[in-house]
Amino acid sequence: MTIALHERLQAQITFAMEIDKLKRIIRRNTLIDGSRRENDAEHSWHLAMMAMTMAEHAPEGTDLDKVVAMLLVHDIVEIDAGDTYIYNRVAVEEQAAREQAAADRIFGMLPPDQAKQLRALWDEFEERVTPEARFAKALDRLAPIVANHHNEGGSWALNKVTGRQVMEKVRIIEEGSPALGEYAARLVATSVARGHIEP
Amino acid sequence: MTIALHERLQAQITFAMEIDKLKRIIRRNTLIDGSRRENDAEHSWHLAMMAMTMAEHAPEGTDLDKVVAMLLVHDIVEIDAGDTYIYNRVAVEEQAAREQAAADRIFGMLPPDQAKQLRALWDEFEERVTPEARFAKALDRLAPIVANHHNEGGSWALNKVTGRQVMEKVRIIEEGSPALGEYAARLVATSVARGHIEP
Repeated sequence: MTIALHERLQAQITFAMEIDKLKRIIRRNTLIDGSRRENDAEHSWHLAMMAMTMAEHAPEGTDLDKVVAMLLVHDIVEIDAGDTYIYNRVAVEEQAAREQAAADRIFGMLPPDQAKQLRALWDEFEERVTPEARFAKALDRLAPIVANHHNEGGSWALNKVTGRQVMEKVRIIEEGSPALGEYAARLVATSVARGHIEP
Repeated sequence: MTIALHERLQAQITFAMEIDKLKRIIRRNTLIDGSRRENDAEHSWHLAMMAMTMAEHAPEGTDLDKVVAMLLVHDIVEIDAGDTYIYNRVAVEEQAAREQAAADRIFGMLPPDQAKQLRALWDEFEERVTPEARFAKALDRLAPIVANHHNEGGSWALNKVTGRQVMEKVRIIEEGSPALGEYAARLVATSVARGHIEP
């Protein structure tokens, strides 16, 4: 192994050890069985699997491999910035600056070409302009709706979220995938009808 | 949404809910900080990230997206079959039949074309013949070596594994990536030299 290659590998290993911390960042929602709250690393895996198996619901021409890559990195900044509950508006705004600094620090541990590449992927996800970013974000919003629908309201009930608030997130799903948006809207309507979430 | 499309989506959602159980399958090794044992879902995420960032150490022409997909699905069968410690030879043999049945049941929840596709991907990983499967398996073997090297022997010490046994796994890493194999061999040698693992 050349010295240059060894140095790159050492930086990649250091990055791999750093991102292990994502396994300790805890989200608001629980596992589907309600047994404990979910962490960001397993959540990212779950979304990547959903992308792999639900790709046909993305607009034609969407680059699935890019969606998967985006979902794998999308929460890494939370190692420094922490998880922000999407229904907490103030925190969502304050969060942006913290996440930018986190992206600089964490992606910056990789060799410069890779740092730039992962940063660009995360920026693209956050901007939600490309079909890949919109589909990735749609899955990120769909997953807790599926879990809460299954868990009689789950984290919605705990955090006093209303059906109207959830329907705003459903619009984000629709923008990434009309089929997934239609499906999510039906889950929310059922949850409201069953009294598992306030209208 | 057509009825056929809705039926496919419903099967994909059912599959997504089923594989949530991978978050409750606990491995022998701990997180890098030693705070708790790792689960299969977060482990799969970690390997997929390692593949994304260490792709340059795979043989030229290796299809990285396939490696990532393989790593995302590689442990799903453990939902039924459980985690088997790779240094437990008897369990490794008994495990094969259980894993085949698990693959039939779990991938079989997807629409038939997708069930076949994911099953083929998992079979390819298990057979370890293609460069993609060899590289994916190399990362699967490298990750606990990095963690245990960092944790003064970690799960090796706990399970009385010797340096010689670990070096057998290093050969699997070498077969997937000479550079990663060389790196892993150095970590094991250091761990032996420091007395963190018996020779």
